[in-house]
Amino acid sequence: MELKQVGEFGLIDLLKDNTIFDSSSVVVGIGDDAAVTLPTPRQLQLLTADMLVEGVHFALETTAPWQLGYKAVAVNLSDIAAMGGTPKHAVISIAVPKHTQLDFLTNLYDGMKEICREFGVNIIGGDTVSSPQGLVINVTVAGEVEPTNLVRRSGAQIGDIVVVTGPIGNSAAGFDLLTKGNWEDYDFAWPLVTAHLTPRPQVKAGRVLAEYGATSMDDISDGLASEANEIASASGIGLIIRAADIPLSPEMIQAAGLFEKQAIDYALYGGEDFQLLFTIKPDQYRLLANQDIGVQLTAIGEVVEKAAGVVLIDRNGNRTALEPRGYNHFR
Amino acid sequence: MELKQVGEFGLIDLLKDNTIFDSSSVVVGIGDDAAVTLPTPRQLQLLTADMLVEGVHFALETTAPWQLGYKAVAVNLSDIAAMGGTPKHAVISIAVPKHTQLDFLTNLYDGMKEICREFGVNIIGGDTVSSPQGLVINVTVAGEVEPTNLVRRSGAQIGDIVVVTGPIGNSAAGFDLLTKGNWEDYDFAWPLVTAHLTPRPQVKAGRVLAEYGATSMDDISDGLASEANEIASASGIGLIIRAADIPLSPEMIQAAGLFEKQAIDYALYGGEDFQLLFTIKPDQYRLLANQDIGVQLTAIGEVVEKAAGVVLIDRNGNRTALEPRGYNHFR
Repeated sequence: MELKQVGEFGLIDLLKDNTIFDSSSVVVGIGDDAAVTLPTPRQLQLLTADMLVEGVHFALETTAPWQLGYKAVAVNLSDIAAMGGTPKHAVISIAVPKHTQLDFLTNLYDGMKEICREFGVNIIGGDTVSSPQGLVINVTVAGEVEPTNLVRRSGAQIGDIVVVTGPIGNSAAGFDLLTKGNWEDYDFAWPLVTAHLTPRPQVKAGRVLAEYGATSMDDISDGLASEANEIASASGIGLIIRAADIPLSPEMIQAAGLFEKQAIDYALYGGEDFQLLFTIKPDQYRLLANQDIGVQLTAIGEVVEKAAGVVLIDRNGNRTALEPRGYNHFR
Repeated sequence: MELKQVGEFGLIDLLKDNTIFDSSSVVVGIGDDAAVTLPTPRQLQLLTADMLVEGVHFALETTAPWQLGYKAVAVNLSDIAAMGGTPKHAVISIAVPKHTQLDFLTNLYDGMKEICREFGVNIIGGDTVSSPQGLVINVTVAGEVEPTNLVRRSGAQIGDIVVVTGPIGNSAAGFDLLTKGNWEDYDFAWPLVTAHLTPRPQVKAGRVLAEYGATSMDDISDGLASEANEIASASGIGLIIRAADIPLSPEMIQAAGLFEKQAIDYALYGGEDFQLLFTIKPDQYRLLANQDIGVQLTAIGEVVEKAAGVVLIDRNGNRTALEPRGYNHFR
């Protein structure tokens, strides 16, 4: 059945089941002019949005609708995680070509609902409209954070350690595998393709890092080079990153070999890893490193004086300025 | 200059000035992973989103970018108004064709900023991405409301009066004038075209109506017929609406004559008026009618038992069921 046969209100009826996973904070969900929620007293409110456009951010040849729905929410939860916060509610707008099959849309929303269920996030509203061309998805996520746990980009201080929460570059290698064909032939492809299609936001880790006093934090959506520069610029400091210490997965190194690329380039410029990059005082890092927080923390550098910019020290000890090359969606 | 020459980060730099109009509630605005706001203690949080798609919701032949920006925010403020709330913050995502001129985008954002300035709403974040085809704008607005002032669709009670805050149908008549040519030839066209292109959300009226005990409320985005049915259905009651009492502007009646349409049809099925439709107890309505609240209230009917559905009584006293014909953006 096609969307145009049921219309906007019919679609909303189909999608609004199983959207509330933490009812204690929802006063009005889908179905009024606006959603109404009950904030937790004395917490700050967080708000973030990401728009995904067919042909720019995804291609339906390389992603199933369920995966696309999952990722569209995941990238927003990752932004909340990077503030040290807890995601609470999602508002989802989609523009849909009118010949879209209803099955496609229910699968898309099932992916959204799955990640919302996992993270206790309520889908409380949105907009469903027609698109003359491709699919467009905008997800807005509201979250909360205690004032003491808020982690901004701008708090890095000289002497802090620079740390990441997991392997970097897997998503970009997965993208190459998906778009350059035959990835099913390679056993090593699975974790990379999965990292690209259904990234897991580091919400739990973000909370713990905030509690341990992370001084600045970003999620790695645009590549390590870009995010490191964001922190350096916002904090008014410099960063030194040691290439040899950046965690690269063996699978990603295999993929780099297959495509005759430098594995480190996937990590520096690839993006969409959704690991967290953060800075923290050395003594706090030592405390943290002794805990099991469910992710593999790796120190990859230090915060230095501003004049340094972001400097990459390669395996031979050579220092080069690490430019914030990343995605420019307008080229 | 074209967008692709400055890229996403260049665009954000151009647009982020003059975005904070009530700094007391903003902890972090544009420029981090998520925006951070300070909620007012003991208020409920409101969240609403609307997506506008080029070729579906607007055509660049009939709207200037400034007007489009204004309207994209206005429709969301109207949703907050319909809950009895105060809009506080906006998060704006746009997908932009890469050959778009920067002037176009600065004008678009200037329209957004103008209405945000008028209503004290902060632009605190968003996403700027590329579109392979037309322009897509998603605005999410967060607002607040005291628990006692929250007005839902579902609270209408038998015996309530049905009221609107101003003339209905102007926007649809304006749309016909804009799309059927030569509207500049008609003096009566101005208020209609203005109602369509730059609708004013009834935020102040919504606050007062909530304080006076409106029992249910909707903004008229999809036409009076559709909104009346929404209230009837959500409240589990029936409505009687007297056609002769629906306020129609003389300009709209002139436009209907020009296009050989029934003026009442613009009001019932046109949509995008963004007046408020609400129900209220008769004694409360008498109190309200004596106040100057900045809008012209008009009683157009009563709330009756559910079995009635929504009934329109025409000028000859004939009763017909008023079906929720409205926009179906998927046809």
